[in-house]
Amino acid sequence: MAGPFDWIEEQARLRHRAGLVRTLRPRPADSPLLDLAGNDYLGLARHPEVTGAAAEAARHWGAGATGSRLVTGSTALHARLEAELAAFCGFEAALVLSSGYAANLAALTTLAPHGSLIVSDAANHASLIDGCRLARGTTQVIPHGDLDALRKNLDGHPGPALAVSDSVFSVDGDAAPLTALAGACREFGAALLVDDAHGLGVLGPGGRGAPAAAGLAGAGDVVATVTLSKSLGSQGGAVLGPARVIDHLVNTARTFIFDTGLAPAAVGAALGALRLVEREPGRPEAVRTVARDLHARLTGAGLEAVRPDAAVVSVRAPSPGEALQWAADCREKGVSVGCFRPPSVPDGISRLRLTARADLTPAQITEAVRVIVATAPR
Amino acid sequence: MAGPFDWIEEQARLRHRAGLVRTLRPRPADSPLLDLAGNDYLGLARHPEVTGAAAEAARHWGAGATGSRLVTGSTALHARLEAELAAFCGFEAALVLSSGYAANLAALTTLAPHGSLIVSDAANHASLIDGCRLARGTTQVIPHGDLDALRKNLDGHPGPALAVSDSVFSVDGDAAPLTALAGACREFGAALLVDDAHGLGVLGPGGRGAPAAAGLAGAGDVVATVTLSKSLGSQGGAVLGPARVIDHLVNTARTFIFDTGLAPAAVGAALGALRLVEREPGRPEAVRTVARDLHARLTGAGLEAVRPDAAVVSVRAPSPGEALQWAADCREKGVSVGCFRPPSVPDGISRLRLTARADLTPAQITEAVRVIVATAPR
Ligand SMILES: Cc1ncc(COP(=O)(O)O)c(C=O)c1O
Ligand SMILES: Cc1ncc(COP(=O)(O)O)c(C=O)c1O
Repeated sequence: MAGPFDWIEEQARLRHRAGLVRTLRPRPADSPLLDLAGNDYLGLARHPEVTGAAAEAARHWGAGATGSRLVTGSTALHARLEAELAAFCGFEAALVLSSGYAANLAALTTLAPHGSLIVSDAANHASLIDGCRLARGTTQVIPHGDLDALRKNLDGHPGPALAVSDSVFSVDGDAAPLTALAGACREFGAALLVDDAHGLGVLGPGGRGAPAAAGLAGAGDVVATVTLSKSLGSQGGAVLGPARVIDHLVNTARTFIFDTGLAPAAVGAALGALRLVEREPGRPEAVRTVARDLHARLTGAGLEAVRPDAAVVSVRAPSPGEALQWAADCREKGVSVGCFRPPSVPDGISRLRLTARADLTPAQITEAVRVIVATAPR
Repeated sequence: MAGPFDWIEEQARLRHRAGLVRTLRPRPADSPLLDLAGNDYLGLARHPEVTGAAAEAARHWGAGATGSRLVTGSTALHARLEAELAAFCGFEAALVLSSGYAANLAALTTLAPHGSLIVSDAANHASLIDGCRLARGTTQVIPHGDLDALRKNLDGHPGPALAVSDSVFSVDGDAAPLTALAGACREFGAALLVDDAHGLGVLGPGGRGAPAAAGLAGAGDVVATVTLSKSLGSQGGAVLGPARVIDHLVNTARTFIFDTGLAPAAVGAALGALRLVEREPGRPEAVRTVARDLHARLTGAGLEAVRPDAAVVSVRAPSPGEALQWAADCREKGVSVGCFRPPSVPDGISRLRLTARADLTPAQITEAVRVIVATAPR
């Protein structure tokens, strides 16, 4: 019988033929695999202090926030996390949302009004791209890291302008030249929006993030977004910036106003993780060392990998099919790695995506390198 | 000093002058206020079984999912919730996302491809509207509940077509005529997407939702979205539908693929709440009774309110200013109510928005009505 969803079958067939079918593989709580695929960079998602804070928050505040942050969904716990996160990262104010994705949509849709210009790096995260598409301003996509293209686009624009960039690009793990970006923005009176999803907890003094590392935290023309779901081992996102910008978001951001507040357990866990990072500043340093070590050993063994600026180590694969096989072989031999293929990678290049963790032991690193090298396509 | 965000000051001034400034009011864990503002319809957000399930999940599975559901973010707990939620609501399959907002963006962006038509009710939720804007198809907005307009738009459209509607509209609490909607869709070979955020746990047999109530659950041409943040007292969202549609989402939905999986605590809490609702089917019935009772008593006292089809009772206020004052006066007298004003209400009509809860006692209902009537603008 013909039905209104028949058209999706054709897409499914094409995916199948191209070897690009994605399937969910639910994991057990205690996987025997060595994890080099997750974003729990500081090893905090299962830290008893963090899970304990989640459990305690659920018991004390409830399992859910029960409403929009503007109705019943703001607890004193949300306010505490916002204050401590802003202080830690060096910004005047912070606003917590239900995900990093929602935070990026909120920032872009409220800071790029009708008549404004957004200049967006071609390698930016999907959530920034969707934010550009939802914003009322006009978006110009520039080649990855192209400062001349940024300047050319900002030059002469009459209305508000906003440059937007990941601080650390999620696929290749390379860092954006934030100081130069901010310089170009200031030349033309534009604002800068930095998505520090992969920088928080990894870069900057004590893990305070890429804007802090570049001396941009707290500047009146800089807004950052972060996620609570990577280094902080929890869930949720936040926008950091001048208090007037945060007020503006509270009043106008649809993904904030029309979304249920972040669950107390996630708020509590993020707060617990943040305090732990402050107390143990060696963790951010450790993850960077592990990433550099992984890169050095893999390239030493002849593999092609991007020098990591943070925790992500990207290793090139010859084709989508070989990338998939490589990742499966690693898994077979006990090592879980990420595999990025089209259409998730806009440039069409397939990669293994490895993530460093602060708590990987030297023996685990050696074993991971051994398996990745032994299974490499040749 | 002039800065790139100066333009937001003018907006702030306008908001201030119009009395439309929103501010966050963090609440304590044990508020002395009688809550008729939250969406915890079944009173489960603080139920020890639900908060206990959240705490247990955090301890056992970790504070966060650690990655995209397609990488490390799928746990066996997510799979269990998906299976039980689909079975409860009567659909073939389910996909859990980090929020109801993300679920709506996922459904619309994947089910309305280039060349397709979306027909969207004018009173639909913000997340559906944003989904329409992100989708590659063309959107036609029709007047609220206008079946003729729906038919007129579907008639003759050559490509895939999708009608989209809230099952219970979030502002006025009125229900969509789902059976008639589905009939019109079938006449023209269109699919139907129903946002059952306010129906799950409230409508249908044992709270199985509005699609089940209308005999549409499990149909090959119907997809539903739900949130885990209202009746289930947790956080997150889900898309329910035919297995092939869910597979299609797993492969193509950006807010699924590029977003960290829902935190285990939220998954565990939703699962715990779902099992509780199955075991105690009196709760959905109770909340509907409370809503009808609230409505009868308020209109009996001369107030203008929409007859509630589910848990939301909308009471008309003469103006934004008076609505705000009314809500403040209620609060002052110990009753927390929602206040919807422009620009959150597209029709410009301000309302108090009351929500029924299954666990409100007769004495609490009497007290709430007393306060709302006593503080009403005249
Ligand atoms: C650069 C970047 N920004 C934003 C996000 C979205 O954050 P979240 O998963 O918390 O929604 C991610 C990853 O998920 C990311 O890699
Ligand atoms: C009709 C409707 N759909 C979707 C949502 C979004 O769900 P969530 O808050 O889980 O993101 C809401 C409310 O928040 C809603 O009222």
